[in-house]
Amino acid sequence: MSAGVPQRPPGCSSQTLQKSFPILRWLPHYSLPCLKLDLIAGLTVGLTVVPQALAYADVAGLPAQYGLYSSFMGCFVYCLMGTSKDVTLGPTAIMSLLVSFYTFGDPALAVLMTFLSGCIQLAMGLLCLGFLLDFISYPVIKGFTLAVSLTIGFSQIKNLLGLHNIPQQFFLQVYDTFRRIGETRAGDATLGVLSIVALLVLKLMKSHIPKIHRGMPLWLRLCYLTVWLTATARNALLVIAAGLIAYSFQVMGSQPFILTGKTAEGLPPFRLPPFSNGTVPFMSMVQDMGAGLGVIPFMGLLESIAIAKAFGITNILGSFVSSYPVTGSFGRTAVNAQTGVCTPAGGLFTGALVLLSLAYLTPLFFYIPKATLAAVIICAVAPMFDTKVFRTLWKVKKLDLLPFFATFLLCFWEVQYGILAGVIVSGILLLYPVARPQIKVYDQENLVVQPLSGLSFPATEYIRDRLYEVALAASPPRSVVLDCSHLNTIDYTVVAGLNDLQQEFQRKGVSLSFSDLQDPVFRVLLAAKFTGPGSFRIQGEARGKEDQQEADSSSHSSLLPAVNNSPEILAE
Amino acid sequence: MSAGVPQRPPGCSSQTLQKSFPILRWLPHYSLPCLKLDLIAGLTVGLTVVPQALAYADVAGLPAQYGLYSSFMGCFVYCLMGTSKDVTLGPTAIMSLLVSFYTFGDPALAVLMTFLSGCIQLAMGLLCLGFLLDFISYPVIKGFTLAVSLTIGFSQIKNLLGLHNIPQQFFLQVYDTFRRIGETRAGDATLGVLSIVALLVLKLMKSHIPKIHRGMPLWLRLCYLTVWLTATARNALLVIAAGLIAYSFQVMGSQPFILTGKTAEGLPPFRLPPFSNGTVPFMSMVQDMGAGLGVIPFMGLLESIAIAKAFGITNILGSFVSSYPVTGSFGRTAVNAQTGVCTPAGGLFTGALVLLSLAYLTPLFFYIPKATLAAVIICAVAPMFDTKVFRTLWKVKKLDLLPFFATFLLCFWEVQYGILAGVIVSGILLLYPVARPQIKVYDQENLVVQPLSGLSFPATEYIRDRLYEVALAASPPRSVVLDCSHLNTIDYTVVAGLNDLQQEFQRKGVSLSFSDLQDPVFRVLLAAKFTGPGSFRIQGEARGKEDQQEADSSSHSSLLPAVNNSPEILAE
Repeated sequence: MSAGVPQRPPGCSSQTLQKSFPILRWLPHYSLPCLKLDLIAGLTVGLTVVPQALAYADVAGLPAQYGLYSSFMGCFVYCLMGTSKDVTLGPTAIMSLLVSFYTFGDPALAVLMTFLSGCIQLAMGLLCLGFLLDFISYPVIKGFTLAVSLTIGFSQIKNLLGLHNIPQQFFLQVYDTFRRIGETRAGDATLGVLSIVALLVLKLMKSHIPKIHRGMPLWLRLCYLTVWLTATARNALLVIAAGLIAYSFQVMGSQPFILTGKTAEGLPPFRLPPFSNGTVPFMSMVQDMGAGLGVIPFMGLLESIAIAKAFGITNILGSFVSSYPVTGSFGRTAVNAQTGVCTPAGGLFTGALVLLSLAYLTPLFFYIPKATLAAVIICAVAPMFDTKVFRTLWKVKKLDLLPFFATFLLCFWEVQYGILAGVIVSGILLLYPVARPQIKVYDQENLVVQPLSGLSFPATEYIRDRLYEVALAASPPRSVVLDCSHLNTIDYTVVAGLNDLQQEFQRKGVSLSFSDLQDPVFRVLLAAKFTGPGSFRIQGEARGKEDQQEADSSSHSSLLPAVNNSPEILAE
Repeated sequence: MSAGVPQRPPGCSSQTLQKSFPILRWLPHYSLPCLKLDLIAGLTVGLTVVPQALAYADVAGLPAQYGLYSSFMGCFVYCLMGTSKDVTLGPTAIMSLLVSFYTFGDPALAVLMTFLSGCIQLAMGLLCLGFLLDFISYPVIKGFTLAVSLTIGFSQIKNLLGLHNIPQQFFLQVYDTFRRIGETRAGDATLGVLSIVALLVLKLMKSHIPKIHRGMPLWLRLCYLTVWLTATARNALLVIAAGLIAYSFQVMGSQPFILTGKTAEGLPPFRLPPFSNGTVPFMSMVQDMGAGLGVIPFMGLLESIAIAKAFGITNILGSFVSSYPVTGSFGRTAVNAQTGVCTPAGGLFTGALVLLSLAYLTPLFFYIPKATLAAVIICAVAPMFDTKVFRTLWKVKKLDLLPFFATFLLCFWEVQYGILAGVIVSGILLLYPVARPQIKVYDQENLVVQPLSGLSFPATEYIRDRLYEVALAASPPRSVVLDCSHLNTIDYTVVAGLNDLQQEFQRKGVSLSFSDLQDPVFRVLLAAKFTGPGSFRIQGEARGKEDQQEADSSSHSSLLPAVNNSPEILAE
């Protein structure tokens, strides 16, 4: 889900001290060149996160300062606990939208949600419950991301056009936005569209700058460097430029833009998260959050690498500084990597920049036009609206389109139903081959029936039906050799089913025997006292000479002696 | 789960007219010798079902006549729709206990439950939902059966000893029965114990009669036949004998036994099931049944062969004659088979005998001592209390003890929790290897990593971790060949995970390539544009010569040309 290869939470796999304290990996070797690279990368990420934080707070339905409150704790915690140098934690578009769904613009609920999400994530990390996330497949994640990015992108159209009082629910929003498109404010719309164009052009320029190398003349290198810096810090520069324009209009006595307005000044207080909200007690706050208490911690871990503990601690500590729930940010992680970050220490400089902005710049945020922030969000979520996934799924595995569409469509109703539907649909797709294994039938001297995968209990009735159909329902009934070369294990239900079936075969005067048994399966069948005449066959004997195959190597060494011994063992 | 091999409900597999109307299979060939055999078997089963029906009605908490009301519809329906000649439908001990749990001794609720269960079972048959039952494994069924047979058996101790007012809940019942054991009535206890002894002796005799053949003298054959008949009809004979004894005491003016008492006379009315109960409306009756509406239809199908449609229709029609929910009976199916039934027409005679008993014998049921009926039940459920299953599970697959004990223990709390817990535990056992496939690592020229089973999406993170661990975390990083010989299919999540990982390998200057690809997997990887240098290897190249194996035949023919073509295809 991210560029780096994920690390299991320590404690869930073989581990070392380094795994538990990842800072020990890089701190002892930390050097001055590293510091320089981390400083540049950290500040660049900082210039991205500050404008994004202001914008995302609006998506979350919270006052602008909450975006910044949420942006620094992750940097510090991840510096200590992070395993990948690139990852940056902080507010993201998706998480902001989820927060708006489940906390209804109430900062107290949002901060309590942060604390509880952190506790749940930490518990998942400590109890090794990360494997639960394994059951959320890519099609589900893609469907969710697509639906949510569409929702977020569309929610900004109203800010881009300067429309007021548009409802929050997606379908109502779409309806109202189009119905009232005539009320569009010229100033906001112009600034918004120009902002998007500027961001797109800068992004395009960045991806087309040739690699700088020492062979180039100095002036060319400087020129490229300027373009690269401008393009990388484009969010911050755009916001500053738009703020200056708005300020100029304000000074001249007219204001064509809707502005961010008054933002609380200074650093957030450090205090316990609000365990009650005025007269509203804790339990009723928890009830208000509802399914959000499942969705937000889960999605917080999903959106990025499964470092449940680091994420959990970030959220728990964040709730003490009025943060709303945060997670790893794709966009800023990419900026971090491209700027050449050396260690997780880069986060320290990002965090410091956010704190400085909070301490000294909040009065200036007054003048930032909302249309520009809308443009920042739209450009941030646009890459997530990756429609190529349709084509890829179609080409790679068409059945995976089912969980994809189930998730995508239901996410517009309620996010949790979308995810749940996707998980259920992909679960059914997963269990179907377990319940209905592929079976090959070779019609030779005897009938040879070969399941092409393992047999587990849900397949018992099916394999019995198939054997009945091909052998016992035939007239006259035929003997069957069950080729078990693909069976690694076997459970009691299957054994019991086969045992019944073998008796049925005997009643009809034919036999059901087993060939190519791997050792564990053979032992189980022996333990279950499969003692019918000629229950077991020497490997390879079953099929005819013309397509006789060596069995798989994993069963090879241990099986042959066991099968050769079988008559003696059976005679005990 | 029964002696016969199950048949899928028609419509869910390849079918013929015969499958839809099973009576067409045997009716055209029906003959007089068949009629004779069916008559004998049908009457024998009838002599078993009448006393059992009276006894099971007590287990269900209903008046005795309801047992008989439930005993004839199944015989007639199964004659028309049944696929196995042996199976008999009717009241069973387990179903009676479940009915008592969920209908609280209210006949109206029980009859409505019959109707609704029938509808649910029929819907399951028509919608091909029978596969849901596949997810209830044998350990769960065994745990359930063991717990329920213990509950039923113990519930009869109070009748055997003549104790009154013992509570219904299992633990309270055990406590109260032992606490009040001093109140035991001598007459009932004596009769009860003697009845059990009689039944056991007769059963033992039956299993020790030598096979009758024409070489024997006539008197010996007649003697054996008498013993066999007595033993087979032991329930009826015992009940008649006990009834006569009780009647004699009654005539002499003293009654040492608790009797069945007044039973409603005559045939049940044919009428709509009660969709409301006096002032209680339909929805509130349904709410009263609660989880029973899931457990009873499901268990009704589980206890015997999955002929959802026949069972559904039996229950729906049964509800018109005041039947409580019925299912296939193990015990009477065995009697049917042993008596040599020829076709499902045997059921006609069983049903007729039940109807005759209802019409003419109900006044006589007054005298049947309850202790004797308790003995009938105890002897019927005793074979279900099969404790050998512990040892078998221990020997065959120790992990299967987990769902077994989860079900067994929780069934004493609430049956539905027991089954649910068993299904969840066996589901986890089923999914664990899917999420954590076994992986073999061969350390040769390159590292060869071979998953020993398929890869599905829950395994993605795990396989990435493992590859990272063995190859990329090593210094220097090593190239890996992923041996895909056990992969039949692959989904988008796995492909995306491997794609990310291949990029990570390339960044570290090593390669991740694939060998022994089966055709479908190869196509998917091509579709997903796996275009890294040397992504694919010719089969067998991966592992060293010393343990090189032919790949499995299923991948053999189609794979080699595809792999040979791969450079051209990739170059498109």
